[in-house]
Amino acid sequence: VIRDAIARDIAAIVGQGGVLQGPAARPYLTDATEAQGLVGRADAVCLPTSVDQVQAVLSWCYAHDVAVIPRGGGTGYAGGAVPLEGGVVVALGRLDGVDTFDPFEWRIRVKAGIVTRRLKHLVRSHGLWFPPDPGAAESSQIGGNIATNAGGPHAFKYGVTGKWVTGIEAIVPPGDRIEIGGPIRKDVAGYDLKSLLTGSEGTLAIITAAWLRLTPAPEAALPIVAFYPDEISGCAAIARVVATGLLPATLEYLDATTLAAAGATFPGGLPEDAAFLVVAEADGSLAAATALRDELQVTLSDDAVEVRAPAERAAIDALWNWREGVSIAVTTMRGGKLSEDIVVPVDQINAALTEIDALGRRYGLATCSWGHAGDGNIHATFMLSRDDRDELERVEQAARELLHFAVSAGGSISGEHGIGWVKRGELARQWPPRAIELHEQIKLLFDPKCLLNPGKKTT
Amino acid sequence: VIRDAIARDIAAIVGQGGVLQGPAARPYLTDATEAQGLVGRADAVCLPTSVDQVQAVLSWCYAHDVAVIPRGGGTGYAGGAVPLEGGVVVALGRLDGVDTFDPFEWRIRVKAGIVTRRLKHLVRSHGLWFPPDPGAAESSQIGGNIATNAGGPHAFKYGVTGKWVTGIEAIVPPGDRIEIGGPIRKDVAGYDLKSLLTGSEGTLAIITAAWLRLTPAPEAALPIVAFYPDEISGCAAIARVVATGLLPATLEYLDATTLAAAGATFPGGLPEDAAFLVVAEADGSLAAATALRDELQVTLSDDAVEVRAPAERAAIDALWNWREGVSIAVTTMRGGKLSEDIVVPVDQINAALTEIDALGRRYGLATCSWGHAGDGNIHATFMLSRDDRDELERVEQAARELLHFAVSAGGSISGEHGIGWVKRGELARQWPPRAIELHEQIKLLFDPKCLLNPGKKTT
Repeated sequence: VIRDAIARDIAAIVGQGGVLQGPAARPYLTDATEAQGLVGRADAVCLPTSVDQVQAVLSWCYAHDVAVIPRGGGTGYAGGAVPLEGGVVVALGRLDGVDTFDPFEWRIRVKAGIVTRRLKHLVRSHGLWFPPDPGAAESSQIGGNIATNAGGPHAFKYGVTGKWVTGIEAIVPPGDRIEIGGPIRKDVAGYDLKSLLTGSEGTLAIITAAWLRLTPAPEAALPIVAFYPDEISGCAAIARVVATGLLPATLEYLDATTLAAAGATFPGGLPEDAAFLVVAEADGSLAAATALRDELQVTLSDDAVEVRAPAERAAIDALWNWREGVSIAVTTMRGGKLSEDIVVPVDQINAALTEIDALGRRYGLATCSWGHAGDGNIHATFMLSRDDRDELERVEQAARELLHFAVSAGGSISGEHGIGWVKRGELARQWPPRAIELHEQIKLLFDPKCLLNPGKKTT
Repeated sequence: VIRDAIARDIAAIVGQGGVLQGPAARPYLTDATEAQGLVGRADAVCLPTSVDQVQAVLSWCYAHDVAVIPRGGGTGYAGGAVPLEGGVVVALGRLDGVDTFDPFEWRIRVKAGIVTRRLKHLVRSHGLWFPPDPGAAESSQIGGNIATNAGGPHAFKYGVTGKWVTGIEAIVPPGDRIEIGGPIRKDVAGYDLKSLLTGSEGTLAIITAAWLRLTPAPEAALPIVAFYPDEISGCAAIARVVATGLLPATLEYLDATTLAAAGATFPGGLPEDAAFLVVAEADGSLAAATALRDELQVTLSDDAVEVRAPAERAAIDALWNWREGVSIAVTTMRGGKLSEDIVVPVDQINAALTEIDALGRRYGLATCSWGHAGDGNIHATFMLSRDDRDELERVEQAARELLHFAVSAGGSISGEHGIGWVKRGELARQWPPRAIELHEQIKLLFDPKCLLNPGKKTT
């Protein structure tokens, strides 16, 4: 099939306005890995407006041996949404309706393309909460969040996206619509295909809609911000919170270099000598949150340079908006970065930070890290100048060594970003051969022609 | 392979004392479906004492085309642990060690055979909690709980067993040991094989050990017990709690017939005119739990015959011990019962209870129900006299109609018990053909000879 013929046939399904060409298509050829220079190419970029259209596009592609690259908001850090070698990009952003919202039953059914922040605002206006809070909520979409099983700061207390998904509608090759689960909170009838699709990064099916579980919004969510003079005292504070048996909603950290990159805009300014930051949050009823906030404040105070507990709505919002911008602030330091998202057992965080420093020294790289300390999920970052091939190679080598460290520490090569294209072939570090074999066979069951998001999440 | 030869070869792996014969083997041929008359037969019943032995037994069976029936505490209601047509029962109860307990990191690695109650006591003595609380905690084992993704009352706030499992070690045919996940709280590296094994009812692998996530034990857990004159007012109270946005840890109900069966031993006695019971629990810090308890008490009071809020430790324990005994009390009414565990959207509970009543009338059967109202998970029960073939047939027909109702209400045929043998072939009511096909193909990937728990969880 020649390139123009593909676009023409896809346009026959989604309409002329549903196929993007030229500069309009360009944003759909990258994701956050563009900072590493990754840009793909596509035979067509389409934006279906109905599940029927998604089904028809996948069926057409499967019949014509054309690759399909499903795409949400394109905010991923693993290249999972980048079309590597042509094919049809299926961007789900126009499939953004709310099918059913039952606030009195704490549940909602949404199409895959609804933007995370819009969903969160909608349910919040009814006193409910959808806790998963991956970065880039203003762009990321629920379908993409499910396809990557996205996390975020509140995953510490509330779990990752998948824990809030009770049903998934998806199109499976060669073009079958299936729905697993629904507006229910328990289901052990079949093998857990819902969880199998969650985090499968568009390599098994195109997720088109989901039933989500919601929960009553906590009355209060009060942050505690603690600054430390070094990594050792900061990591000790994190360990102390966990050992004390307090249960904050978040338990985040940022290291000295991250603070240097993002600190200029820190609300209220950083204290002098702050080289490590911990952000916890106490939530619940106002009374419960206040009591927990006070306990956390005491627990975090040992060896701290300063501990703050902003209580005003505006100050709290400013803090979390700042936290959300950290990744971009780090990127702008040198123009580019490679951000890993390894997971280690929580008692290995200090060792992981030491390893990141050592890798930076060994490879002559600027490094920094921040992340979800309570979950042991570390955004280890290697900064990149653009157009320095040698540096990029050293970064990639250092990143591979870091993955090796994570696995040998009993952890995982990815807690949030997924394998995508960036970590292709790395799963074998973590899984034994029989599990790798099952992984590959499951891929072939769903997608025997290997046309769904080819080259991604490969073992 | 002849029967004695099987037992002899298995004994060569697990030792003479590890193979049970005659009356000693009898308890391993049934589970809770014995009340429906289900008793299996086995060529050998073995109790391995190490993961190596489990691996060797599975390898031997796979090489000799002998079926393997993995078994935990044998407390299931779906016949999932019953050896239907011979083979080797692998009972994991002697594999009950604690491999690693890291109380300061809220995690534990246990072997599959550890008894639920023992695990819960062990972690509680360190201020931690493992929330899943399926019935029969004194007999059920963690491996079985994972293999069925067991629930329980506290699943309403805290989720089912699978949400607390961060790693699984399992033996996969033809005899490979794999470990997926570990002492970590996030992991999106590979397809979610951990969740695929969770709830797979011993048909894909033998689970031998697991890493579990724990959480700080709440300081207080205060029940509220509300009695209603009928189903309608009781169901309205449940809906009111959810609509109000209160978040109890449990939201249970019991209907009039269940109260009649179990009410004689209700702590403090039942009020006159009590025909429906709701049991909620408020947990958290003492202050938070007390405040929520008071709110729940108000919300549950409309139309209630009486609302009680036992506050003494002994009274609270007595209440939950009574709740735990309900299933047995119902069984003893007639000598037997068939208990379903359908799930419906929470707003369909009232309709489900009406349907159960109608089925009882249509088939001339005594029925009752209780369950996890907040999760829409209903233990619909048809009472059985022993040795009445005609009644058993009517019960089975009524149960099939109930499954049909659950699916047409947007629910599931099983929320806790699984498919086992009792609900074989029923998944196609709930899943479309392509999903059924994937289910069958996944089974063949893991177990190409179909020797693992044959006849169970079949579509």
